[in-house]
Amino acid sequence: MASTDPTAKLLYFDDFVVGTVFMSDNQSIGKEQIIEFASEFDPQPFHTDEVAAEATFFNGLAASGWHTAAITMSMLVRSGLPCAGAMVGLSADIKWPLPTRPGDVLHVETEVLEIKALRSKPDKGIITLQSNTKNQNGDIVQSMLTKVLIPKRK
Amino acid sequence: MASTDPTAKLLYFDDFVVGTVFMSDNQSIGKEQIIEFASEFDPQPFHTDEVAAEATFFNGLAASGWHTAAITMSMLVRSGLPCAGAMVGLSADIKWPLPTRPGDVLHVETEVLEIKALRSKPDKGIITLQSNTKNQNGDIVQSMLTKVLIPKRK
Repeated sequence: MASTDPTAKLLYFDDFVVGTVFMSDNQSIGKEQIIEFASEFDPQPFHTDEVAAEATFFNGLAASGWHTAAITMSMLVRSGLPCAGAMVGLSADIKWPLPTRPGDVLHVETEVLEIKALRSKPDKGIITLQSNTKNQNGDIVQSMLTKVLIPKRK
Repeated sequence: MASTDPTAKLLYFDDFVVGTVFMSDNQSIGKEQIIEFASEFDPQPFHTDEVAAEATFFNGLAASGWHTAAITMSMLVRSGLPCAGAMVGLSADIKWPLPTRPGDVLHVETEVLEIKALRSKPDKGIITLQSNTKNQNGDIVQSMLTKVLIPKRK
């Protein structure tokens, strides 16, 4: 299992190998961030009100799934996928098996599933990735299959 | 085609009908918001730097797909899906056929595709929705198939 470290070289499409797994750095998420994000983008009581959240489906404050998705992207860009160039998402299939909670420390583990050159775009290719976002207990809070456009070495 | 208006009643699982289409209110997105969101969650030049973005795949500043997704959720909660109770997403399959640009005015059109009662959860059901986020030209910037848990009438 390959892991990402600061000395790892940045990868072009040509460098990716099916089966490689990349690990991101950790990122913590606090109560204030959960409430702030949800107040703007997903204003439902279980995401915005610690007390009201107790009596809901989630039995306590939980991050919006879109917040978990956004933090996952942040971890992929900053450390989780050492791309030399742009990472342009074409599609994403997401599941949220468990909520993200205040105080969780997340990281994302990404496996390269498929590599596809494009006749129509000689300077780029499509890589299919499985990114699992896990909390400090190793539980998966988000699983995501994505197709991303990645530049080739010039 | 049903459209959402302030006098429309809020719906429980029992009230949904396959084929109904709900329309959200409009929401505009500005350059500063695009840069602010991307600086935190998707720090790539085509999302954060108006000048650098010119020479990229996007030929100009574009919102992160995760920003479009988050705004879509915001529109669904505030006006796009008149749910009486919680809307808990279980999964989402997203495609971004076109970028969201600074100055775009978005809305989301949501069609009810499937309604499924759950033997295991007598107080809730799963609804499958197709939500298309469109800009002011009617172009789809995001298409999303979601499964959401919706409470039944008590």
